[in-house]
Amino acid sequence: MQIRDARVDDWDRIWPLWHRIVSAGETYAWDPDTPEPAARALWMPPALGAANRVFVVEDADGTVVASAYVRPNYGGPAAHIANAGFMVDPDRTGRGIGRRLAEHVLEQARQDGYTGMIFNAVVETNPAIKLWESLGFRTLATVPGAFRHPVHGPVGLNIMFREL
Amino acid sequence: MQIRDARVDDWDRIWPLWHRIVSAGETYAWDPDTPEPAARALWMPPALGAANRVFVVEDADGTVVASAYVRPNYGGPAAHIANAGFMVDPDRTGRGIGRRLAEHVLEQARQDGYTGMIFNAVVETNPAIKLWESLGFRTLATVPGAFRHPVHGPVGLNIMFREL
Repeated sequence: MQIRDARVDDWDRIWPLWHRIVSAGETYAWDPDTPEPAARALWMPPALGAANRVFVVEDADGTVVASAYVRPNYGGPAAHIANAGFMVDPDRTGRGIGRRLAEHVLEQARQDGYTGMIFNAVVETNPAIKLWESLGFRTLATVPGAFRHPVHGPVGLNIMFREL
Repeated sequence: MQIRDARVDDWDRIWPLWHRIVSAGETYAWDPDTPEPAARALWMPPALGAANRVFVVEDADGTVVASAYVRPNYGGPAAHIANAGFMVDPDRTGRGIGRRLAEHVLEQARQDGYTGMIFNAVVETNPAIKLWESLGFRTLATVPGAFRHPVHGPVGLNIMFREL
């Protein structure tokens, strides 16, 4: 398993994963029907670089099994706070891939000069919350009823944060 | 004083106000040096409509003295929560313009079907917090030290919310 910065041409191997996760409508506050070009704009805009990083995890045969992005959550006077998003192939969860990717991303964000990382919208039924808590994130607040879950109905969106 | 939906060509009269407020670096988490085209993209993207509204307040001689935008804060399963931003000409504060604009915007957002409104990043030294609280917003959380204020140094960013 290798974790590395994505190249622009990795998108074609991220997109199937992205589409599967977002179309389920259970964990991301994005349109489940997001078309491919709009998905790409959300996850990896063309200008990759220190202020806009995307990571992939490849297994031994080169399959992309997870991805993450990191970018400033705000601009100007608050651009030192990072935002990040994570996706792991639903067929490969429970193997520590998410944790290893997250540890890598946190370290890279620290090296890039961010002083904190915020997740703006973690669906409160998302099992990944346990992972984030074990990595030092705390829920600052929950936006009540903000997410219409296809199974659980209206649930909250957690805003999670940790210093770096 | 008239409050109305903005037309695309109102931007030229919003921009001086926008630039003056953002370049001060005290209340918005946007780059103080944001150039005009990027500012326009942030405040009023080309496709104005029910899901992307901009308002202006004009005084008797047609001068734009305030503006606001309303759009979904999230997508898909959470698109019923609105985000909004407000700017009042710094030379015309204290006259109730912000309050009247906010009341109008809240009513319009309710009519557009939003069930809540969130402000993601209210600088905790911003005097407008009193106005938001008087209009029913509560601070869900403060992101500590997230904003480098030119006078006060590192201050928090309040996440404020109210049901509609």
